[in-house]
Amino acid sequence: MLEKHPDDAVTRACFRRQDGPDKHGAGTDGQVLVQWELLLCAPTIRNWISGKTDSYHPVTALGDPVLAPGLGRVIETRNPQFPEGTRLFGPATWQDQQWLDPTVGYRIIPDGISSVDAMGPLGINAITAWCGLVKIGEPKPGDVLLVSGAAGSVGSVVAQIGRIKGCKVIGIAGGAEKLAWLREECGVEHLIDYKHENLAERLDTLCPDGIDIYFDNVGGDMLAQAAARMRPLGRIVLCGQISAYDGGGPIVAPPIDMMRLIYGCIRIEGFVGRHHPEAIPMALADLADWTAKGLIAHREDVRPGFDNLPETLSLLFSGSNQGTLIARICDEAGAPV
Amino acid sequence: MLEKHPDDAVTRACFRRQDGPDKHGAGTDGQVLVQWELLLCAPTIRNWISGKTDSYHPVTALGDPVLAPGLGRVIETRNPQFPEGTRLFGPATWQDQQWLDPTVGYRIIPDGISSVDAMGPLGINAITAWCGLVKIGEPKPGDVLLVSGAAGSVGSVVAQIGRIKGCKVIGIAGGAEKLAWLREECGVEHLIDYKHENLAERLDTLCPDGIDIYFDNVGGDMLAQAAARMRPLGRIVLCGQISAYDGGGPIVAPPIDMMRLIYGCIRIEGFVGRHHPEAIPMALADLADWTAKGLIAHREDVRPGFDNLPETLSLLFSGSNQGTLIARICDEAGAPV
Repeated sequence: MLEKHPDDAVTRACFRRQDGPDKHGAGTDGQVLVQWELLLCAPTIRNWISGKTDSYHPVTALGDPVLAPGLGRVIETRNPQFPEGTRLFGPATWQDQQWLDPTVGYRIIPDGISSVDAMGPLGINAITAWCGLVKIGEPKPGDVLLVSGAAGSVGSVVAQIGRIKGCKVIGIAGGAEKLAWLREECGVEHLIDYKHENLAERLDTLCPDGIDIYFDNVGGDMLAQAAARMRPLGRIVLCGQISAYDGGGPIVAPPIDMMRLIYGCIRIEGFVGRHHPEAIPMALADLADWTAKGLIAHREDVRPGFDNLPETLSLLFSGSNQGTLIARICDEAGAPV
Repeated sequence: MLEKHPDDAVTRACFRRQDGPDKHGAGTDGQVLVQWELLLCAPTIRNWISGKTDSYHPVTALGDPVLAPGLGRVIETRNPQFPEGTRLFGPATWQDQQWLDPTVGYRIIPDGISSVDAMGPLGINAITAWCGLVKIGEPKPGDVLLVSGAAGSVGSVVAQIGRIKGCKVIGIAGGAEKLAWLREECGVEHLIDYKHENLAERLDTLCPDGIDIYFDNVGGDMLAQAAARMRPLGRIVLCGQISAYDGGGPIVAPPIDMMRLIYGCIRIEGFVGRHHPEAIPMALADLADWTAKGLIAHREDVRPGFDNLPETLSLLFSGSNQGTLIARICDEAGAPV
């Protein structure tokens, strides 16, 4: 459960393990008891536990279990349409088991897809990438596509979809290992190591004629640098602002030149998947097709242990995870790990 | 001609009248000599003469004539497709006469439309309003539409198109006279006098459930206030940032909460008419129809005198013009006024 809202960094002290008698009760008619197997560690969880009570994102109160997207298996059912053994993906919490209404916001994972694949190349991060790039970014062959957080679970899929769509893709990531993976496994031709290279100089070299699409996972200075280079009719897709999540306070716009936006007819558009439910089937069809053809590389960083959840989550903010970060709570048979 | 770039306010000292021998020459084949009749005084001219050499807007150098949209009559022709007497609207300069190529960026004004109407209810400001609201703002019946600069030549048309489209329109303007005109002539039901009322309180009262479309002519704090109240899937149309034009330096984004943009799937989109040429015939058809039916009130503030151009332009920045601000250089017969 949430012990205190993080002031800056996410640390173990923000959380407390609470054991005790089963608080789940017996559930009510229509509900199912789910044993969580995998919990997604996504940067946005940092915002949900921040204690900010803005109306526009889920808020976790002190003493409540931490919210997270999760995949689990029905181990007891009071809903005949969801028999024991059904795997569900959807809103979970940092608990081993949970009674829930499976008809609200959950997706059944079909047999033949591994749990990890359902959280990885066919998971919510990949769907988010598809939705943001294809629906908001509207990539056309020859477009210059800049992606920040390019080695992340969303960014790496964005970069590869951009490559499939015929864009000139420029990825920004930190460190030689991530760059090598992007180049060799993901086929991203142009890369910037923001930790060791001068971003502005590299952008001037790699996209001297400007940028058509900037897919922003980072915010802050990277967003300002990209905005200053947008071509007329360019699109900036706002997906995350991870550079600022640990900063406390509201995350405000960096110094973007407003007149450039006007004269260039530049569009800046935020998005989260839940406002685009109609896109999910299209996204999954494309992603399954591309994955089957080997066109999209993906890697998952699966860290075992319920008790390690705080440390696992905090890896995101030091940039030390490699791929989609997933906490494994139990094995496929339901035994704790 | 431009004598110096304005440091802050636009004043007479920024300009110098230059008389002398006819510098127009005889023109070249294909060109026409135009006697300008009306010159539009638009806020964006302030940016063109600022001396900022950003690549994205026209730059007027010291010693050059000031650029302005204008309407004039062909008085000598070397292009048989544009006989003497043809009226043209398009890029003009602060000169009485000018040789130009009429095929590049000019529109012929048909007989039956007065010159002032062609600069007013059927002019570039009205086309800009249509384009920004209909194409970018995508108004739907019941949408809450907030318009800043609502008594201006663009804003007043935006507010009325919003009313025609079934939106709940809230106009922001300064002073009782402008508000009375918007209420009584333009049929704008909800109004905020930013000079005499507390903007945040009035917004909380008038749109407690938020805003679907904010049409921004002003920027700065008004943009920040609106952005903080956008509903999910809301659209912010960036048309101008007049609050900052006199400030020098780049006009940067106000403190907009980036996470609100993301979670709410908010879109911020700049635009200028020249990137939407395909929309002009649609805009003119709608505007002519609505004007003929008396659905759109419009007023022009025509100030005579070539020598008064500096003072006429500066009226924009004190908010003391009433309607589309136009400088009359000569009468319809071509005699100086």
